[in-house]
Amino acid sequence: MDERVREHAELLIDWSARVEPGDDVVVRFDAAAHELAVATAAALGERGANMVAVTSSEELSRAYQLAHDGDFEADPAHELALYERADVVLSLGGGRNTAASADVPGGTAQAYARARQGIREARLDSRWVSTVHPTRSLAQQAGMAYEEYREFAYGAILRDWERLAGEMARLKELFDAGSEVRIRKGGTDLTMSIEGRTAVNSAASVAYDSHNLPSGEVFTAPYDTEGEVVFDVPITVRGRRLRDVRLTFEDGAVVDYAAAEGESVVGDLLDTDEGARRLGELGVGMNRGIDRLTDNVLFDEKTGDTVHLALGRAYDANLPEGESGNDSAIHVDLITDMSGERGSATLSVDGETVQRDGRFRWEDGFA
Amino acid sequence: MDERVREHAELLIDWSARVEPGDDVVVRFDAAAHELAVATAAALGERGANMVAVTSSEELSRAYQLAHDGDFEADPAHELALYERADVVLSLGGGRNTAASADVPGGTAQAYARARQGIREARLDSRWVSTVHPTRSLAQQAGMAYEEYREFAYGAILRDWERLAGEMARLKELFDAGSEVRIRKGGTDLTMSIEGRTAVNSAASVAYDSHNLPSGEVFTAPYDTEGEVVFDVPITVRGRRLRDVRLTFEDGAVVDYAAAEGESVVGDLLDTDEGARRLGELGVGMNRGIDRLTDNVLFDEKTGDTVHLALGRAYDANLPEGESGNDSAIHVDLITDMSGERGSATLSVDGETVQRDGRFRWEDGFA
Repeated sequence: MDERVREHAELLIDWSARVEPGDDVVVRFDAAAHELAVATAAALGERGANMVAVTSSEELSRAYQLAHDGDFEADPAHELALYERADVVLSLGGGRNTAASADVPGGTAQAYARARQGIREARLDSRWVSTVHPTRSLAQQAGMAYEEYREFAYGAILRDWERLAGEMARLKELFDAGSEVRIRKGGTDLTMSIEGRTAVNSAASVAYDSHNLPSGEVFTAPYDTEGEVVFDVPITVRGRRLRDVRLTFEDGAVVDYAAAEGESVVGDLLDTDEGARRLGELGVGMNRGIDRLTDNVLFDEKTGDTVHLALGRAYDANLPEGESGNDSAIHVDLITDMSGERGSATLSVDGETVQRDGRFRWEDGFA
Repeated sequence: MDERVREHAELLIDWSARVEPGDDVVVRFDAAAHELAVATAAALGERGANMVAVTSSEELSRAYQLAHDGDFEADPAHELALYERADVVLSLGGGRNTAASADVPGGTAQAYARARQGIREARLDSRWVSTVHPTRSLAQQAGMAYEEYREFAYGAILRDWERLAGEMARLKELFDAGSEVRIRKGGTDLTMSIEGRTAVNSAASVAYDSHNLPSGEVFTAPYDTEGEVVFDVPITVRGRRLRDVRLTFEDGAVVDYAAAEGESVVGDLLDTDEGARRLGELGVGMNRGIDRLTDNVLFDEKTGDTVHLALGRAYDANLPEGESGNDSAIHVDLITDMSGERGSATLSVDGETVQRDGRFRWEDGFA
């Protein structure tokens, strides 16, 4: 086994999920992530944790959903019990085909997601972490050779997370003290409130309320969104390509949408439920170890010089204790590139420019 | 997808497990059985059942057990809850290497099995069915080409089970009415009591208290075993070959053992717990569709002309209501060939010969 697979598993268990002896752990993995699952099983055994390994094979899920009449039972008791009793849930992405469920009708996928909201909540109540095993299909989606892609992925994953956390603390402080964020660039002028919300310094560890490996972003839960935004970073959602998605917000909700590609997917997403038309997240990518876009949201949204917004569910970590934020069965991130235009792409907090053309005001090159 | 994979999945769901809409189903499958798992997922979706797919990858289990200090927690709450709430548990065997866990020390495997006894009980309380997807590694173990092996396996699985059940009812009646079974052939002379026990007409369906697909055997739970038996059908257990295992019974328990190959595995099995030294099952193979030995117990023990005995746990279906039979963390079948010797291999019930050299007394050729 490649030593990096072992390092990845140990980082996941120790730094990210903070697994302790006796923890009840669910490991979810897709078919091509078997090698990382084996390394994770060894790391869990060594720490004296308990493991159930569940498949998240998209081919299985597709076959099930396509054959079902669509009237899905809400939160089946056996699956709900598994996640309610889990201390830790680790999701190891990595299939054999990123378009494996491309032919599942949007309405079916929505109904399936809605029926599993309780299971999702139970998972989000655990010390959950999502990561990805670099597979050939992800290399293909990135337009990269397999070995080249593995170099890229491990370069983003096997980092000094404690040091990055120190850098990201600066932006978190600005967001925590601020009331309104405004994003401006060609075609985009969006304002949103962040008053009373707490930003997360997402350093790839549950100890930082951060649940992705790799991570490297600062995110909060905005509301009262107004204006227009174009997401110019292409991204694959549910096996379908989305390009130049344009959303118009009034009173916090999407009132109009368009896309150069994948417009019907956007429509399906927005129709999932009430909360799917509102934002659950504003995130600012700060992982400069991710040096290119690879059409994989887990990496792309962390890229330095990008900002992303998620339709749907907000994370509790951004909210005051006991308060509930935007609720939805979906959480879909859309990304815009802040580096592409000279002097015109700005992120500001309460009228002060914090980032211009991808440079933060504390960085060299900020004009 | 090969049409036979689909037929296999539908037989499993409808005939074997009798899945109903709304059933909470756990599908366990090993890495190379993914295709059958996909077909099973489609069949479950179509019937409106709920599915959780769990991996039974031997590579994962090996990695976990080898890394663990061996002091396994008993019945982890999340896994126990999953199986306690399951209506149906389907196990789809089929890995990439039948020796995948050959280097797990016997003591570790025993400790792991003992720690999961509650989980096993919960699984056995469900409508459970074990089947196998014909894989390249199973073909290799059988010494057969892949396509040849698939012909063999589907020939054994895709049968008219209702008709076979009619034939097997004859032997069940003899066992139900009888008190003592005696097996004699060269090197073997074994008697055991079956008084008060109920034989199962194992027709590959939970409706017959039968939990294997393929099946085709009549089995009961013997006790007070006395004498000596040689198992001359080689079989692989825990990735290790067992050949010519010889057991000596006194007062129902093994007091001496030997083997031409794999003797230490036999010792490890017998040391698992108290019940591992006693028999949990006497089974008579009656599936003449299985026309050769393939070193896979699921098939071999059903072969016409064979008799098998299992060390360890007895099945509740053989016992009077509320009575508990032999208890153990293991259930390991060992097989003897009744066809090989002229006139000297006999199975008798209360002194009357029921089978001689593999022929039943109601069959042509019974001398």
